[in-house]
Amino acid sequence: MYLDMLARPELILDEARAKANLDHLLAKCRKADVRLRPHFKTHQSRAIGRWFREAGIDRIAVTNTGMARYFLEDGWTDITIAMPVNVREIATLADLSRHAQLGLMIMDANTVDILGSGMADPVSIWLKIDVGTRRTGLDPRDIGLIDQLVDRIAHYPSLTFRGFLAHAGHSYGARAFREVEAIHRESLSILSGLRSRYMAAWPHLEISLGDTPAAGMLWDFGQVDELRPGNFIFYDLMQLGIGACQADDIAVAMACPVIAVHPDRHQWVLHGGAIHFSKDHLQLADGRKCFGRMVMPTQDGWSTDSLEHAPFLTGLSQEHGIVQCTADTFQLARPGDMTLWLPVHSCLTADAMGGYVTTSGERVDHYRAHVNEQ
Amino acid sequence: MYLDMLARPELILDEARAKANLDHLLAKCRKADVRLRPHFKTHQSRAIGRWFREAGIDRIAVTNTGMARYFLEDGWTDITIAMPVNVREIATLADLSRHAQLGLMIMDANTVDILGSGMADPVSIWLKIDVGTRRTGLDPRDIGLIDQLVDRIAHYPSLTFRGFLAHAGHSYGARAFREVEAIHRESLSILSGLRSRYMAAWPHLEISLGDTPAAGMLWDFGQVDELRPGNFIFYDLMQLGIGACQADDIAVAMACPVIAVHPDRHQWVLHGGAIHFSKDHLQLADGRKCFGRMVMPTQDGWSTDSLEHAPFLTGLSQEHGIVQCTADTFQLARPGDMTLWLPVHSCLTADAMGGYVTTSGERVDHYRAHVNEQ
Repeated sequence: MYLDMLARPELILDEARAKANLDHLLAKCRKADVRLRPHFKTHQSRAIGRWFREAGIDRIAVTNTGMARYFLEDGWTDITIAMPVNVREIATLADLSRHAQLGLMIMDANTVDILGSGMADPVSIWLKIDVGTRRTGLDPRDIGLIDQLVDRIAHYPSLTFRGFLAHAGHSYGARAFREVEAIHRESLSILSGLRSRYMAAWPHLEISLGDTPAAGMLWDFGQVDELRPGNFIFYDLMQLGIGACQADDIAVAMACPVIAVHPDRHQWVLHGGAIHFSKDHLQLADGRKCFGRMVMPTQDGWSTDSLEHAPFLTGLSQEHGIVQCTADTFQLARPGDMTLWLPVHSCLTADAMGGYVTTSGERVDHYRAHVNEQ
Repeated sequence: MYLDMLARPELILDEARAKANLDHLLAKCRKADVRLRPHFKTHQSRAIGRWFREAGIDRIAVTNTGMARYFLEDGWTDITIAMPVNVREIATLADLSRHAQLGLMIMDANTVDILGSGMADPVSIWLKIDVGTRRTGLDPRDIGLIDQLVDRIAHYPSLTFRGFLAHAGHSYGARAFREVEAIHRESLSILSGLRSRYMAAWPHLEISLGDTPAAGMLWDFGQVDELRPGNFIFYDLMQLGIGACQADDIAVAMACPVIAVHPDRHQWVLHGGAIHFSKDHLQLADGRKCFGRMVMPTQDGWSTDSLEHAPFLTGLSQEHGIVQCTADTFQLARPGDMTLWLPVHSCLTADAMGGYVTTSGERVDHYRAHVNEQ
């Protein structure tokens, strides 16, 4: 049994579940005639990236220049850095653009000028549009500014206006299909409006939209050219709460040894804390926090039966996790047992762990283990 | 200026502030006639560890076996792993104990038996006492169980009963001097009671107590033999909120480039998110969350003037930080500027960053960069 070989906290990867998530999304993209530009910030793994390549994917998104280089060195040459350009990294960006078809995201004229002067090789420029998340992006109604930026981009031979990019991040706050759908419709409407307005002058412009809830739950992507979800490869308790996946779609689980038990209060203590799970949590109906929920190990994975009644993590300190059980579930483990926990936010858990162990016991690489090499 | 050379998020270490924190605590320990066993889980750095050694410290605490080995390899040979023993790591513990005087923490008879049979070299055994934190530890009133464990330890030639160890972690919830003091008095009373009871049979037993609020704010440590704080070397906004330090004692700050600004809502967007800061936060009086607060860079560090009116981080996603300014403070930065932020919880921020840059521009190592070597 794969857990028998483990002694310390590890992030377990169920390859079959993750590959099924990928296959499902690929089928949906084919049906909707939309290209997939998967966001690799979730898995951050060359090995997992290769599954996508074998499925015919040749374009990706990442969140920073170090991650771009990590994947470039594994043969990925069409890379969008889906964060606003950090102009302090102009030399790094120029170097990356020598080897990759780089897509960059901008929102102001000054950044366009700095890129225009600093980049010798061709770079694709996306205008980031705020479809309601209020994190970053241009107000889609501010046509004056958008016109000005598009003209400015055209001014520089190394820059090509590629299109409009948006992230409907506010869908992560949704708790029902209808909410996700309403947010998605609004995003599509905003982006279609922009597309229509600029299509005559820029016939090759594209619309890039990225969020896992819409990609997971919906089937109509209107005039979107590429979808940019990341989390769907693993999913997690947060996506389950939104309704973007089923419990059995969640493809990673934290393995944590039980290091103490407290029969008086039906609690276990795990070696597994904030530096392993990250501190994202769900608020339960009764007001308590949930930092992860237990699943039952099987020979080659885990079972999510009775998930809603399973013990859950009520608190995390640096390396401790506190688990609240009932009188019944308390009997399920004792010190020395290895237990399995679905994470609340798999992107952050994977980043914190910096590596995976598959359910067949193989280690899988993660960019985090290479951050200091950059 | 040290920030000029930086392009990406980095954790800045102010050596002078950190060394002053160390000197202050060392002076206090001398005065109170208590030994310091600093908890290295906060800085996790061999270079910073050497400051302690140069100050005459020869014993440390860590949270896991990997960290124990990292410091052992730098010459530390008296190491307490201040987490409940994970019996799945018995082989690793046995190996560590061949090279170091290892202190282990236990709470149940089964673990004593496993250690007793598995450890060939001498190991010190601490009984963990719950002084009210309700995370881990034996109920100090359960003398029957404590007697049983002490007898059990004595049964094994490789195990030596070293004494009682406690962590008054509930002091982190305190928000006033009186609360920290009350928690500390209660801890001292519990531990003194146990010391008196077992002293006759175990004249060499020690009391080990660890929490930064008490170590930082109080001067009376009663019959405590060793203090085990960790966070005091850096402090952070959480300790400032408790009253355990002054703003100018905080010795680390996150450097984050501004990557976007939103004049309409007086917000900046930083490259600096959950994977850099961690997601611990403070709840402000008006209900908003604070994930970090801005300080003003100086030639060789930073100034905390007007800290309470400074912009603060209201939200973090994976790599973005959202900063709320006023109309006035909004003018302080624009895209491309490098800004500085005091972290809420420096232990987690240091762990997330896995390295430091000093205010003179030198890189300082962190165990996280070596986790995958173990």
